[in-house]
Amino acid sequence: MNIQTEQAQKAPSITNLGRHILAEFYNCNSNVLNNLELIERVMAEAATECGATVVEKKFHMFSPYGVSGVVIISESHLAIHTWPELGYAAVDLFTCGDTCNPLIAYEYLKEKLSAGSAIYTELHRGMFNPKNEEVMVSPFQIKTHID
Amino acid sequence: MNIQTEQAQKAPSITNLGRHILAEFYNCNSNVLNNLELIERVMAEAATECGATVVEKKFHMFSPYGVSGVVIISESHLAIHTWPELGYAAVDLFTCGDTCNPLIAYEYLKEKLSAGSAIYTELHRGMFNPKNEEVMVSPFQIKTHID
Repeated sequence: MNIQTEQAQKAPSITNLGRHILAEFYNCNSNVLNNLELIERVMAEAATECGATVVEKKFHMFSPYGVSGVVIISESHLAIHTWPELGYAAVDLFTCGDTCNPLIAYEYLKEKLSAGSAIYTELHRGMFNPKNEEVMVSPFQIKTHID
Repeated sequence: MNIQTEQAQKAPSITNLGRHILAEFYNCNSNVLNNLELIERVMAEAATECGATVVEKKFHMFSPYGVSGVVIISESHLAIHTWPELGYAAVDLFTCGDTCNPLIAYEYLKEKLSAGSAIYTELHRGMFNPKNEEVMVSPFQIKTHID
């Protein structure tokens, strides 16, 4: 092993400050999507299920239909917007650290919204370089993209 | 003009239910990023500036530092997470409809956080086909990506 390789192996690698799952849920149960209390409960449960700690939450019912809401967690936030008339919900699951896994929240919500189909994309935000302890000026990195 | 072309021109085009700006702000003023009241105020102002209507807001100060917060607007939500120790903030500006422009909120926040540099990406979420009035099962579309 030459010195260069050895140094490369010892160098701390670039990490990301946040994991951001953008999820699209289709053909969901419209009654669920239009139920403020239920959406608030399953979003809070999704946070707990994935290992996050709920700090605050705020949900709002729109007229004639649709729910928007956010759960602020110690590890960032979970957000949802529903279109009951279209059976569609757009969800964001943004987490920091290694203590929770947003993909568990994704699977939980997919089931609770009775989504006929779903897509998610995982983005890595805030690329941190431990060498100089700076956040790199770099767009987010797409880790997974399921069609 | 043949019939086919005429039909194509008359056909309603596919639209998106939501515009989602993912913004990364670097080398910001750390005192601003660690000021709960100030972050809450500039986020609410960013909503108003871009033509949105504030419905609810919830902000939280972390120990030893960092602010997380969300403004629910009639048109969806604005969210922020700050890392004052790194001068970095991750921001999401999610809007629906044509009455507000999230890019105005982006520019407003860039100035108010005194960001040395910034990057944004615009995603189109919930691709709606007016022909059958259904949301297409399709991942979001990236409209703009500035490096």
